[in-house]
Amino acid sequence: MRTSIATVCLSGTLEDKLDAAAAAGFDAVEIFENDLIASVSSPEEIRRRTAGLGLTIDLYQPFRDAEGAPPARFAAAERRFRAKLDVMGRLGTRTVLICSSVAPDTIDDDGLAADQLRRLADLAAERGMRIAYEALAWGRHVSTWEHSWDIVRRADHPALGLCLDSFHVLSRTDAYGKIAELPGERIFFLQLADAPRLDMDVLQWSRHHRLFPLQGRLDLTGFTRAVLDAGYDGPLSLEVFNDVFRQADPHRTAVDARRSLIALSDDTLTPAPELTGIAFAELGVDAETGPQLENLLRGLGFAHTGQHRSKAVQLWEQGDARVLLNSGAGGDTAIRAFALESTDPAASADRAAELLARPLPRRRRRSEADLTAVAAPDGTEVFFCRGDQGWLADFLPTGETRTRQSGITRIDHLSLAQPFDRYDEAALFYRSVLGLTDDEAGEFAAPFGLVRTLAVRNDDRSVRLALSVPLLRRGDWAPAVPHPQSLTLLTDDLARTAEGLETVAVPANYYDDLDARIDRPDGTARALGALYDEDAHGRYLQLFTPVLGHRVFIEVVQRIGGYRGYGFANDPVRMAAHRARRLVPRA
Amino acid sequence: MRTSIATVCLSGTLEDKLDAAAAAGFDAVEIFENDLIASVSSPEEIRRRTAGLGLTIDLYQPFRDAEGAPPARFAAAERRFRAKLDVMGRLGTRTVLICSSVAPDTIDDDGLAADQLRRLADLAAERGMRIAYEALAWGRHVSTWEHSWDIVRRADHPALGLCLDSFHVLSRTDAYGKIAELPGERIFFLQLADAPRLDMDVLQWSRHHRLFPLQGRLDLTGFTRAVLDAGYDGPLSLEVFNDVFRQADPHRTAVDARRSLIALSDDTLTPAPELTGIAFAELGVDAETGPQLENLLRGLGFAHTGQHRSKAVQLWEQGDARVLLNSGAGGDTAIRAFALESTDPAASADRAAELLARPLPRRRRRSEADLTAVAAPDGTEVFFCRGDQGWLADFLPTGETRTRQSGITRIDHLSLAQPFDRYDEAALFYRSVLGLTDDEAGEFAAPFGLVRTLAVRNDDRSVRLALSVPLLRRGDWAPAVPHPQSLTLLTDDLARTAEGLETVAVPANYYDDLDARIDRPDGTARALGALYDEDAHGRYLQLFTPVLGHRVFIEVVQRIGGYRGYGFANDPVRMAAHRARRLVPRA
Repeated sequence: MRTSIATVCLSGTLEDKLDAAAAAGFDAVEIFENDLIASVSSPEEIRRRTAGLGLTIDLYQPFRDAEGAPPARFAAAERRFRAKLDVMGRLGTRTVLICSSVAPDTIDDDGLAADQLRRLADLAAERGMRIAYEALAWGRHVSTWEHSWDIVRRADHPALGLCLDSFHVLSRTDAYGKIAELPGERIFFLQLADAPRLDMDVLQWSRHHRLFPLQGRLDLTGFTRAVLDAGYDGPLSLEVFNDVFRQADPHRTAVDARRSLIALSDDTLTPAPELTGIAFAELGVDAETGPQLENLLRGLGFAHTGQHRSKAVQLWEQGDARVLLNSGAGGDTAIRAFALESTDPAASADRAAELLARPLPRRRRRSEADLTAVAAPDGTEVFFCRGDQGWLADFLPTGETRTRQSGITRIDHLSLAQPFDRYDEAALFYRSVLGLTDDEAGEFAAPFGLVRTLAVRNDDRSVRLALSVPLLRRGDWAPAVPHPQSLTLLTDDLARTAEGLETVAVPANYYDDLDARIDRPDGTARALGALYDEDAHGRYLQLFTPVLGHRVFIEVVQRIGGYRGYGFANDPVRMAAHRARRLVPRA
Repeated sequence: MRTSIATVCLSGTLEDKLDAAAAAGFDAVEIFENDLIASVSSPEEIRRRTAGLGLTIDLYQPFRDAEGAPPARFAAAERRFRAKLDVMGRLGTRTVLICSSVAPDTIDDDGLAADQLRRLADLAAERGMRIAYEALAWGRHVSTWEHSWDIVRRADHPALGLCLDSFHVLSRTDAYGKIAELPGERIFFLQLADAPRLDMDVLQWSRHHRLFPLQGRLDLTGFTRAVLDAGYDGPLSLEVFNDVFRQADPHRTAVDARRSLIALSDDTLTPAPELTGIAFAELGVDAETGPQLENLLRGLGFAHTGQHRSKAVQLWEQGDARVLLNSGAGGDTAIRAFALESTDPAASADRAAELLARPLPRRRRRSEADLTAVAAPDGTEVFFCRGDQGWLADFLPTGETRTRQSGITRIDHLSLAQPFDRYDEAALFYRSVLGLTDDEAGEFAAPFGLVRTLAVRNDDRSVRLALSVPLLRRGDWAPAVPHPQSLTLLTDDLARTAEGLETVAVPANYYDDLDARIDRPDGTARALGALYDEDAHGRYLQLFTPVLGHRVFIEVVQRIGGYRGYGFANDPVRMAAHRARRLVPRA
């Protein structure tokens, strides 16, 4: 299918937007009128620029308040329409979107609406152009696709067809099935947008909160299928009004956008291989945090079992948890990479590439494993590997053995605070590239502002990632990193693991409240100095270290009886404790 | 009246919040439970800290899901309630807020609710404490103040009274008048919050969009009057959940908060004197922009008529427009100050001080005018003066006279882009301190993101300020200052003013659209290279210069036939034109 994007999806001037759409590999654009009006480039210049970029202009939009207009206003609309046809001629585009009228004086008369649209269709047809008529969800009298289809049928003009927009349809109804029965050649254009489910005025919902397909909660897959089943063969075109995308780097947004269309509709996409675990997490460290982390890992029973053949990277192991400390990479102390066990690493990498994941230079050297890596939206490197054969052979054994069985069994999850502009992109990236599914989403009030969270996981929960982002980009008041990353290790005996571990003190007030609100407090959490949560499946205990450097801390958790969550509700307490920096005295 | 603020209004840890509330001069706080739970300070330590700061703790809140609970859950609630009374005893506070239940299993039985609240009131009374019961607007069965009052009456316990919250009442109804008939001694607590009018789920509206009184659109004045008329004599306490305030400097927010209560309720406040115009605008300039601005002003017919006796400040005049160029202040080229003509400058200054405007050091020296200045929320200095006697005498005449009558008559308005965290504060500041009223508000899609605007003005429109703020704090993609300030000059003959003025080119596409959408295009705007707008009163033409330095440009406007607006709808075109930096060639 051809892919297209409305310029209104992207930030910047029209020229910025066209460049970004082309760079991301789109075939076409919809020109949003206001973008053209504000552009210093003439329509002819835009036409040349798009052609030079390999783009076509598949739609000019929107033309407002045409059908149902009282006579005087319709005369003005007709004059305006002729002028816009002139502009379209200069742009070299042949389809214009007319959206259903919202003007208060619009007349509720389908016959009149059909007559007026037929008149405008005549004008378009004279120039070899055509009209795609769309029902806005908040249209004055025409607000459903069925109604817009009634009018198109009644007007019965070859230059008048439908524009279907997933948001306008799905924001009002889940009953879109009959779209599949439409004659496909009467659907002139298809606009796609997803959205979260929000209980608010539909116009505001549409103007601020649309998302790219598979980023929200509307049934884009079923809807798109219905339109294609009808026989529609035009482009899949994105029209997304989103407050964040409007102010984010359009080159990044355009890639995110096209990834959504590929994930939605590309039948040739390599299926996501099964993932079976997190093979390792790699922390970048510096001269100060390297020794701190070595001490900390040793305290957790890890041994420094391997040293990379050619790089300043240490391998530490305890149970099935493997942590790399990389002191040669520069940058902040942070989770800079993780590796996923895949049943087919090459296929995982192929799928990532097909979904426009940014490839990273291979880390290959003589006798080193050929690990394919891609960059996640926040820059974290994601590797694919299988078994121990490959990458472990890059590490020379140090001979060091584990000092004690600390109870740690494996990496439980990684908590990755996302850059403000990239949160929805990250969610789609992990869902589509890795085939992970949403696990738990929420919003909580942290000391320095609201935070949104989304956990994603594989089927057997051996791969879990917890994404988070502030609801508003932080200013000067909040600490530079109010919400750091965590490497969360799973233990089957937190008391044993905690021996000798320096953790941050949880306030006594927290335990007083815990004792008051849970049914049978047993004092374990308080005795351990741990955070506590419970769900229908079991209980959860969390200990956490101070922040190392500025961006990352280590967390150790125990899941008792099948607890499935992440303790998100405890995050505000943890963040305040991190700020207070009191430590638990332990032997 | 005593003033109080809920800790949930402010950003930071509990200790940060208490310090900020005290510094802003509040008498009391409400402790929001989650703030205490996350605090490393024990209740006794918080008690000592608040006392040391001169604050009392007037409320502990919230206690949830008590009334209407099935027996087993009520037993747990009672246990939890006892624990919270313990905490309150340690904090030294005697009133707890119970909000109406939201739990799905809540029983719809007022008799049961009254019995259960009576039981809890007994427990509270045993310790000399009391319960303020509040109807949440989204309560499961109790969601109106009338219903909560029915239950309180039915329970008939001296330790059980009402908590009234302006948001919960006014979000559901404007019919609050009967509150004035309540027995005042049964109103145990009053919480105040304003909000914009939003058509959305009331819970989300409440959690994200509350504002301080007089910042939104609810009738806080009438509501507060009704509660006071009932005889309520407790504190006026703010409870505002706001996404921005949650992440902004709490010291600033607390001042904004207390200003709102003073403006709302202080009968001793000095009335705002009448303002009669903008006496001058002062631009800070540097070695590069100073000469640019001198040229520009000369091109506009201004003459350099005066030189400050002791500072590197030039006075430029044309018509009644006076512009100061200050090359000795350092900092960005920007509007750093403006002066307002007041019928009583001393009273204006007194009112500003009473409303917590930050005073600035007086600029007084031998023989220099005693101008009182305060800092607006964005740091702009606001002076008050009367007539020409005072400050003009500080300038020595240069003897230079105006080169031509350019048509410029006066300063039309100042457009002041606000810091992201301070927009609602700025609106309240200008309304309350200067007595300005809202003129025009909007939201528009600019090239680098959505922008909100609000114009405020005095009665005769001789003082107009246009405030704006991005909807989201900008990141790296947008230009550093995508939305600069403007000094907007009024002319009665734009064609004459434009002679020799270097302005930024408005794209031809703009005029093509203009000709298509307005009734009788006369070509004036296109011929002048001006932006155009019209309203019910008249027409508006706008010319604008390139941005000087990084933050400010000069705009010249003509109002034909009484146009009242600001041309906000043209801002996206102007911003794109500024980015493109093409100039209009003029003789």
